[in-house]
Amino acid sequence: MINIYDDINKLESTLRQTPEFKTLKEAVELVRSDEESKKLFTNFRDIQMKLQEKQMNGEELLEDEYMYLQKTAQLAQQNPKILAMLEAEMAVSKIIEEINRIIVKPIQSMYDGL
Amino acid sequence: MINIYDDINKLESTLRQTPEFKTLKEAVELVRSDEESKKLFTNFRDIQMKLQEKQMNGEELLEDEYMYLQKTAQLAQQNPKILAMLEAEMAVSKIIEEINRIIVKPIQSMYDGL
Ligand SMILES: [Ca+2]
Ligand SMILES: [Ca+2]
Repeated sequence: MINIYDDINKLESTLRQTPEFKTLKEAVELVRSDEESKKLFTNFRDIQMKLQEKQMNGEELLEDEYMYLQKTAQLAQQNPKILAMLEAEMAVSKIIEEINRIIVKPIQSMYDGL
Repeated sequence: MINIYDDINKLESTLRQTPEFKTLKEAVELVRSDEESKKLFTNFRDIQMKLQEKQMNGEELLEDEYMYLQKTAQLAQQNPKILAMLEAEMAVSKIIEEINRIIVKPIQSMYDGL
């Protein structure tokens, strides 16, 4: 009996020990503990989620909505604590993508030439 | 120095040993080696990809396109070899989702209450 959970949990534990993970955790705490940064971030995130949901329902975004999202994103990124957090998120995302790339590669290969 | 690749490769190797992975591999080979099944599947997959691309570009699908996709999917699923492959894909997808759920959980938790 193969227990894949042992390997998943091991990987999850190692991921938590990476500098990228630790940097992100610190960056999130800095945003959380600063009222202004926290507000800018949650505002941007809430708008983004609302508009993404709309898009996933097959609705096109109005130009006004798109511009408001862009502006809110711009405002958030001008905040150094949020910018640092977004950059840390990207570094962690790269690891997650790398994990997925390696994991799904043998599955994708099954379909080669099909 | 943390070498996360050791853990990723270990997990990838274990995944390849699961019954779900082996069942999928056999199911894909059965589709590949049967001309009729292969044609039905690749036809469905190609249409699905084309329409998904359209949707990702923010274009809405025409009702005709949607119905054609549904019909091609229906035809494909009436083929027992393809149906078995799609079911095997779902079983493997569940494992991949479970891996991702566990891996990203500590990242998502960072944002709790934000
Ligand atoms: Ca401040
Ligand atoms: Ca046949």
